[in-house]
Amino acid sequence: MNFSLVFKILGRTLLLEGFALLLPTGVALLYGEDIRPFLYTILILLVVGGLLSLLRASRQFFAREGFFTVALTWVMFGVFGALPFWFSGQFGSYIDCLFETISGFTTTGASVLTAVEGLPMGLLFWRSFTHWLGGMGVLVLTAALLPSLGVEGTYLIQAESPGPVPSKLVPRSSTSSKILYGIYLAMTVVETLLLRLVGLPWFDAVVNSFGTAGTGGLSVRNLSIGAYNNPAAEVIITIFMLLFSVNFTIYFLLLSRKWRQALASDELRFFLLIVAGSIVLITLNIVPQYGGFTWESLRHAAFQVASIISTTGYATANFDLWPEFSRFLIFVLMLVGACAGSTGGGMKCSRVLVLFKSIRREIRQIIHPRSVNLVRLDGQTLEEGTVRSICVFCGAYVMVTLMASLIVGLDNFTFGTTITAVVSCVSNIGPGLEMVGPMGNFSAFSDLSKLVLSLCMVIGRLEIFPILVLFSKNAWKRS
Amino acid sequence: MNFSLVFKILGRTLLLEGFALLLPTGVALLYGEDIRPFLYTILILLVVGGLLSLLRASRQFFAREGFFTVALTWVMFGVFGALPFWFSGQFGSYIDCLFETISGFTTTGASVLTAVEGLPMGLLFWRSFTHWLGGMGVLVLTAALLPSLGVEGTYLIQAESPGPVPSKLVPRSSTSSKILYGIYLAMTVVETLLLRLVGLPWFDAVVNSFGTAGTGGLSVRNLSIGAYNNPAAEVIITIFMLLFSVNFTIYFLLLSRKWRQALASDELRFFLLIVAGSIVLITLNIVPQYGGFTWESLRHAAFQVASIISTTGYATANFDLWPEFSRFLIFVLMLVGACAGSTGGGMKCSRVLVLFKSIRREIRQIIHPRSVNLVRLDGQTLEEGTVRSICVFCGAYVMVTLMASLIVGLDNFTFGTTITAVVSCVSNIGPGLEMVGPMGNFSAFSDLSKLVLSLCMVIGRLEIFPILVLFSKNAWKRS
Repeated sequence: MNFSLVFKILGRTLLLEGFALLLPTGVALLYGEDIRPFLYTILILLVVGGLLSLLRASRQFFAREGFFTVALTWVMFGVFGALPFWFSGQFGSYIDCLFETISGFTTTGASVLTAVEGLPMGLLFWRSFTHWLGGMGVLVLTAALLPSLGVEGTYLIQAESPGPVPSKLVPRSSTSSKILYGIYLAMTVVETLLLRLVGLPWFDAVVNSFGTAGTGGLSVRNLSIGAYNNPAAEVIITIFMLLFSVNFTIYFLLLSRKWRQALASDELRFFLLIVAGSIVLITLNIVPQYGGFTWESLRHAAFQVASIISTTGYATANFDLWPEFSRFLIFVLMLVGACAGSTGGGMKCSRVLVLFKSIRREIRQIIHPRSVNLVRLDGQTLEEGTVRSICVFCGAYVMVTLMASLIVGLDNFTFGTTITAVVSCVSNIGPGLEMVGPMGNFSAFSDLSKLVLSLCMVIGRLEIFPILVLFSKNAWKRS
Repeated sequence: MNFSLVFKILGRTLLLEGFALLLPTGVALLYGEDIRPFLYTILILLVVGGLLSLLRASRQFFAREGFFTVALTWVMFGVFGALPFWFSGQFGSYIDCLFETISGFTTTGASVLTAVEGLPMGLLFWRSFTHWLGGMGVLVLTAALLPSLGVEGTYLIQAESPGPVPSKLVPRSSTSSKILYGIYLAMTVVETLLLRLVGLPWFDAVVNSFGTAGTGGLSVRNLSIGAYNNPAAEVIITIFMLLFSVNFTIYFLLLSRKWRQALASDELRFFLLIVAGSIVLITLNIVPQYGGFTWESLRHAAFQVASIISTTGYATANFDLWPEFSRFLIFVLMLVGACAGSTGGGMKCSRVLVLFKSIRREIRQIIHPRSVNLVRLDGQTLEEGTVRSICVFCGAYVMVTLMASLIVGLDNFTFGTTITAVVSCVSNIGPGLEMVGPMGNFSAFSDLSKLVLSLCMVIGRLEIFPILVLFSKNAWKRS
């Protein structure tokens, strides 16, 4: 392992985090708040990041260095990004600050705060800004901005891109990143303007767009998006949550006017099918609670389905009070998650689709033992190695969830609370059911559980294997 | 599909069920009870089974015929086996009788009865006897007893054997079945004698041995095995539950004095590791509830761990009242289940082990992308197709569980009740958590849920794919 280079990259990235902190500092200034929590943090980041950047390193950089860099950077972004919260004195303990920050950067949106209204605006802005930064992967950004290091960014993108097959849009990965970031920025701006147009204050329009873009879901109101009582805003956010859970390659194809190729995606159809089906089923199921088949029941069903499958986690209704069928369907959506190549989390629709196809293949093989059956996606035959990796991924997902739940179980909350808290963190959603429902929070968990859940967020965000690699002896041998 | 032959085999098997009913009839006579429920059922089975046996059929019999026969027979055994309960008038509805009988034959042990003490002895005997019959597979038995059909039993055994690789002990499958049945019978007799020796009444010794041998778990006392307040009996049953969850091939190897080969099984070691680890962890976790580290806490931990991992479902303590860590660990054991080739259910230790090894392989591949990594079990390299099938099986297991939970969720019980009820049925265990905990029962579920849960039991017992095959269009084409 080329530790010098790994830490050198980390140094550069921490400098970038310090730079990013200027924005919330500005917001704090604007609202006449205490800016010292931010200044101290920026100072620390300048010193640590600066020193690490000075490291001399060879340019040897392979897959395992990539995975290690990514894992370390996400954790360190949380460790340092938590400092403004900690210095502000508004949080209970440093662990709480760390949980909240990792929840932000991993675009999870789980919170330890029992109430957010009344917190300084600068802190609230930073909290939501972490979503936006985390959304497309801090390191896709890094790879795009730091080609000066001479490191082939592909390994970083491979380790960090959500989904099984990171597609290269253009030959140079740094150019790909810039295009994706352009789309990301443009969509965020459009959403902000629309939200302002329907009456949200500028501050709320901006931070809620950050939360949507990153599919994060930390909100600046105690009742989440429901607090605005603004159906137009709810519809806008519903649409944008869905837009941000689609593979960004599709937008690139649309921009290149390759309409056909863009809409031929099996994953996209599967995703839309799940969304439409879930909205219909939940609407029918919650009808009694909303006094008949009303526009309101449909709107709430659509918002909550979009919020969960996109792994955002905003809420306009307390779905924990819905009938068990709807609650369980929401749990299933938590596992499925968004499309690959989006800012969302979860197992990803494409993986679930491949798993379905593999099951169907297995059944065909039983009926016609001598036939050759291949798994196809988007008209192309998937390599057996890819199919296997996807199935193993799903297995690893379940195992990580079960093991983490065992540890969180030590806190002795209910079965539903324990498992949905973990699934919510591994899938980077935010809310779960029961105690961690949309109107609940994670404050009651022990420090151990908060650390385990934070780790789950990072594991989920980086699609499990990059973190599991770090637990392997082989990865630590000096090359 | 060669329907004539399928129904002809079904006819023979139903005659066998009629024959099996003579035993509970005898028990009912012995206790001076009404034997008409049994006589009517035997009469119906004679007529239906006799007529079907007369069908003329070609000998064409392939994998899909095997799967169809197996699925149909298990369902029909339930449908007819439920009649004595129904005729007795002791049950609420026919659906309840069907649920109880399928629960018996699939060796699940889930019950809709709120109290069993006071029911006629003949019925209680039949209820437990279904466990024993189900334990080794109704059709393996048929294949062994009816070679006259000229059907190659391999396809039946393949469809019915628990575990990924049904091992042939000797070249002829009917001989294999006889050897396995001999071991099964001998172990049941030994357990019965031991239980009698420590003071259980003959009736209880016999029926509880049936429940242990089949890893069923329906008991004849309201408090299950805890009712006897007999630590010696608890220890005996603990040991036999574990013995019946081991691959029976190992006993065959031991009988053939191939000690080395017998004890070299990776699955056996993995199984014992999980059992020992779980007992230690749960004992430590429940210590406060049992006033310190006592023999009692260890005994209860060991009994419940053995009961759940063997998928039996007996109880000596209400583990639903244990701390969440223990409850969650029990949930994990429910998913894992026993060894392949035993009478137990669940995903099977060998599959979980292969899944673990596949995850490790995936990690190695990331660190050394160009290396060739194979998955080995018992010193032999597994074919890639087998590894893939096992991973897909685990995926299918989770999907079946989630879909069934959605439907059962319509009953609007808690999240914990819903999902553990389904897992308990798919893994053929019996109890779950919360409402279906060891001191609870399944009576409150709707008829729809009871039917779905019954289907889950059959799906789990036949290892998922044989039933999924029936939902495929291809399987129904006439050949």
